[in-house]
Amino acid sequence: MSTRITIAEYLFRRLGQLGAKSIHGVPGDYNLPLLDYITPAGLRWIGNANELNGGYAADGYARIKGIGALVTTFGVGELSAINAVAGAYVERSPVVHIVGCPARSAQKSQVHLHHTFNDGDFSRFAAMHSYATIAQAKLWDIRTAAEEIDQVLRQCVLQSRPVHLQIPVDMGDVEISGERLHTDLLDTTLGPMSLADAVVDAILDKLYSAKRPIILMDGEVRDPEVIESACRIIASTKWPTWVTCFSKGLVDETLPNVHGIYQGAFAPEASQKVFKESDLILCVGPHLSSANTFTFSALPDPKVTIFINDTDVKILDEITEDAPAKYVVPRLVERLDQSRAQSLYQQYPALPKDSVVPFSSLPKDEPITQDRVWRALSNMFREGDVILGDVGTAGYGLRDVILPPTARIFLPVTWHSIGAQLPASQGAALARRDIVESAGGKGSTRTILMIGDGSFQVTAQELTTIIRQNLDVIVFLINNDGYTIERAIHGLSEEYNDIGRWNYLLAPEFFGSPKDSVRTATARTWGELESVLNDKDIIDGNGLRMVEIFMARDDCPVGPMSMWLEKQKSRVSK
Amino acid sequence: MSTRITIAEYLFRRLGQLGAKSIHGVPGDYNLPLLDYITPAGLRWIGNANELNGGYAADGYARIKGIGALVTTFGVGELSAINAVAGAYVERSPVVHIVGCPARSAQKSQVHLHHTFNDGDFSRFAAMHSYATIAQAKLWDIRTAAEEIDQVLRQCVLQSRPVHLQIPVDMGDVEISGERLHTDLLDTTLGPMSLADAVVDAILDKLYSAKRPIILMDGEVRDPEVIESACRIIASTKWPTWVTCFSKGLVDETLPNVHGIYQGAFAPEASQKVFKESDLILCVGPHLSSANTFTFSALPDPKVTIFINDTDVKILDEITEDAPAKYVVPRLVERLDQSRAQSLYQQYPALPKDSVVPFSSLPKDEPITQDRVWRALSNMFREGDVILGDVGTAGYGLRDVILPPTARIFLPVTWHSIGAQLPASQGAALARRDIVESAGGKGSTRTILMIGDGSFQVTAQELTTIIRQNLDVIVFLINNDGYTIERAIHGLSEEYNDIGRWNYLLAPEFFGSPKDSVRTATARTWGELESVLNDKDIIDGNGLRMVEIFMARDDCPVGPMSMWLEKQKSRVSK
Repeated sequence: MSTRITIAEYLFRRLGQLGAKSIHGVPGDYNLPLLDYITPAGLRWIGNANELNGGYAADGYARIKGIGALVTTFGVGELSAINAVAGAYVERSPVVHIVGCPARSAQKSQVHLHHTFNDGDFSRFAAMHSYATIAQAKLWDIRTAAEEIDQVLRQCVLQSRPVHLQIPVDMGDVEISGERLHTDLLDTTLGPMSLADAVVDAILDKLYSAKRPIILMDGEVRDPEVIESACRIIASTKWPTWVTCFSKGLVDETLPNVHGIYQGAFAPEASQKVFKESDLILCVGPHLSSANTFTFSALPDPKVTIFINDTDVKILDEITEDAPAKYVVPRLVERLDQSRAQSLYQQYPALPKDSVVPFSSLPKDEPITQDRVWRALSNMFREGDVILGDVGTAGYGLRDVILPPTARIFLPVTWHSIGAQLPASQGAALARRDIVESAGGKGSTRTILMIGDGSFQVTAQELTTIIRQNLDVIVFLINNDGYTIERAIHGLSEEYNDIGRWNYLLAPEFFGSPKDSVRTATARTWGELESVLNDKDIIDGNGLRMVEIFMARDDCPVGPMSMWLEKQKSRVSK
Repeated sequence: MSTRITIAEYLFRRLGQLGAKSIHGVPGDYNLPLLDYITPAGLRWIGNANELNGGYAADGYARIKGIGALVTTFGVGELSAINAVAGAYVERSPVVHIVGCPARSAQKSQVHLHHTFNDGDFSRFAAMHSYATIAQAKLWDIRTAAEEIDQVLRQCVLQSRPVHLQIPVDMGDVEISGERLHTDLLDTTLGPMSLADAVVDAILDKLYSAKRPIILMDGEVRDPEVIESACRIIASTKWPTWVTCFSKGLVDETLPNVHGIYQGAFAPEASQKVFKESDLILCVGPHLSSANTFTFSALPDPKVTIFINDTDVKILDEITEDAPAKYVVPRLVERLDQSRAQSLYQQYPALPKDSVVPFSSLPKDEPITQDRVWRALSNMFREGDVILGDVGTAGYGLRDVILPPTARIFLPVTWHSIGAQLPASQGAALARRDIVESAGGKGSTRTILMIGDGSFQVTAQELTTIIRQNLDVIVFLINNDGYTIERAIHGLSEEYNDIGRWNYLLAPEFFGSPKDSVRTATARTWGELESVLNDKDIIDGNGLRMVEIFMARDDCPVGPMSMWLEKQKSRVSK
């Protein structure tokens, strides 16, 4: 076929094929001509207030939609975003970072342009990004541009990690053949794979010979088919199952055998006993970072664990390469004998099952406290919600919430970049709306952000994008007068953990909503919080809503943070 | 001597010796213990709202104070700041970027900590920073820690460029000998340097034999002694002199022979004639980037130019290495025969000398326009002011302002990172206050920020630090409804150049000032602007003040931006 298409439109059409409907970013002189091709490709431009926020937003969008894209300008723009890109790398979010660069002629002539180091070297920024992305391409030759685009996009989705794509400003509107658009980017027919088949056999042998098997579902493998297959194994075996901070929300927690996040040293004794005494742990997508494993106290014992990774399987101490989770896990589901698996447990162990805290159990006039607020807030969660908890008391507290099926949650896992979840909530809410629009209006678009005051200050301006796009986001701002998570770690009463005291509920009006058009509320007591959760305009309304919850500055959620805080308090009192 | 001192205190005392009185940054778990040693070292901690802003603030501080410091945490914090650090590199601002890192034991054991890539590799962030800093040190051995600190600090000041210093969290409070504190970090006695002496001779020969010599003072060499010596040459020769965007404010523009920024193709014809017909251009500290040279139209002709660089001199086409500006320029002053130099011009050429636009010449009820607003705003400038113009109409417009002696100005030079000047104004205002405090209260602490709405949105939250520290900053917010600089380049009426419409003057109250405690004003007409400049509470007040100036979205300052805009308009109308 002879259809001609510009390189820019080729790229955006490919992104559309992968599921992107919206493109985030900030305009800049080297990327402006690119932006002209977004609407013609059937996509929507979402301008963010700055590039770091744009990166977080694209990450949030990608985690819900399976692909996200960020457009920045050369140098300044791409460096401002690099922390968000690195976070997407660590937590496996497929973000395509598109950088509009100086023209090829200027680069070849080593012209001392603005947004450079004034030394004729145009390569430094891409070199820096090579540490934070899984694949890179610098479009330079129109003969290979399309296949280079395809190659990085394919890596992005398959590895579920960010990629970096440089497009010189003179290249976006060059026409090339559009023929490649008809090839399937993600044609990854796998198999037959004899090694992987043997691994499936070996796993089944191990599973059937176990006496106290359990499942630990982690989040490192993001492929939807793998997750769905793993969920079917959890449902059909009925074995005791835990999730992690990274995977919470990927598994239906209302199943009787799913017991929330395994919190290691901070888990109930009964859970620790079952976890430690298990003779076979099936662990899908392990991501064994300090925070995700409660400082390694929740590590599965490698002597009894089968780790199913993205491209390999580790059975006890033997690693088999080229046995991808995407091949192995669906085949496990196919071949698993459900009744044999279920018969392994003569008696299901006595394990706690968490539940929400009803407001009737809370003293109306007393201040809200971290120990119960997260399970009290759980009362409002419903199917299809996206819930985000920024690093700090919010993200740590939300580990304990009770989620309905199909609700998704973003918790601090490893990157722990404060403020990230505010722009991510913009991206996630937009992704939900794009999904609901594609489904003819079916589904929830409600997104709930829980964020501390210190984190809020980092990225606050991105509320303007939530307002401009009229996204359905409820912000719960935890006002505890500073960096409580840092106070718990070091410097309990030190000035460096203080922050400015903002008038937070002015945010909607400041960031562009007409006065009083956005529903806001304040809660200092359990009674006030209950009223907020009964307020239909807040809970069931549309667009931005904002609730300020006051809690004490030296109050932390149960778990590690409370332990750190107690140590600090006893240190100070000595 | 046997005084013992912690490594952290050693570092902060050294920074104090170099002139730092305040340290910027954001607390994070890996840097918290470091922060305990700031006050004991006699310095002040300034917590910023986020790390990018902290980096810009440290840069603004460094440009006024000669040294700035930024403390961030490992990974997330240091990457968030990297764009500001790169800008400091390009525009030669001496910023010490101190990163609190995981403990040595954790790094050696390749523990999968948070704020890492979860792969046991702790080296990536420093590798990324090596592209954006002039020197790096990773403190690892207490025996060499002090000298490594000294080495990077020395590089920072001598090169006037940022450095990167990693301190593991277990090292800051280790005690070492404090003896080195008594050695002079900046002992750079130069000479005698025979090559450099020969260069001085050669320069003098060239100067005396010229018929139409001129001086182009640029900003690449930041050493105060060099700048002062160059200013003496300008004053004593009385030759026609121009500055650049980078050096404006370093030279007393009230001297009769100083004619502001040489704007190349955009300069008055008479200026272009003299500049082009000169047979000898003495150019100190050339920084010949596109923006600083008006797209290379203001380049001095290398066939007639003597370039005095940081470490070398280029006379016509011959480069002499190891002839540092710091050696050469003061010796030129010593040896220059003033009357001989002055005698070269029989008649001083007829050159325009700009002046402020008096309000009496402006129609009171008409809207404010870009063509005259900058020289009208010049009415308020006075000695000791620090004036900052962010990229956009503000930064480009301020090229034309009239500065009193000793006023400093920051204009877009090369890095052009939008939003940078808001946090930089916090840093600069603080530096001025630190200077005035050290001088027993003598001098001005007034800082004036001119910034467009699009730029303001990038970094707005840093107003909270201006408020908390009660810094004397007047913000002039140019509200022209979006990215006017981008509209002038491409996409005149495209949606991607639009931004959210904020209620900007709510900023002080939102960011923590008591309601109505901060003076704000609005100006849409020349008359309103005149009233603002006559309002003593705004112009001579203390703390934050904020003025919103409305201008049309398709109005640009005279010069390149207007030229681009006209091209866009004619393109659209075709």
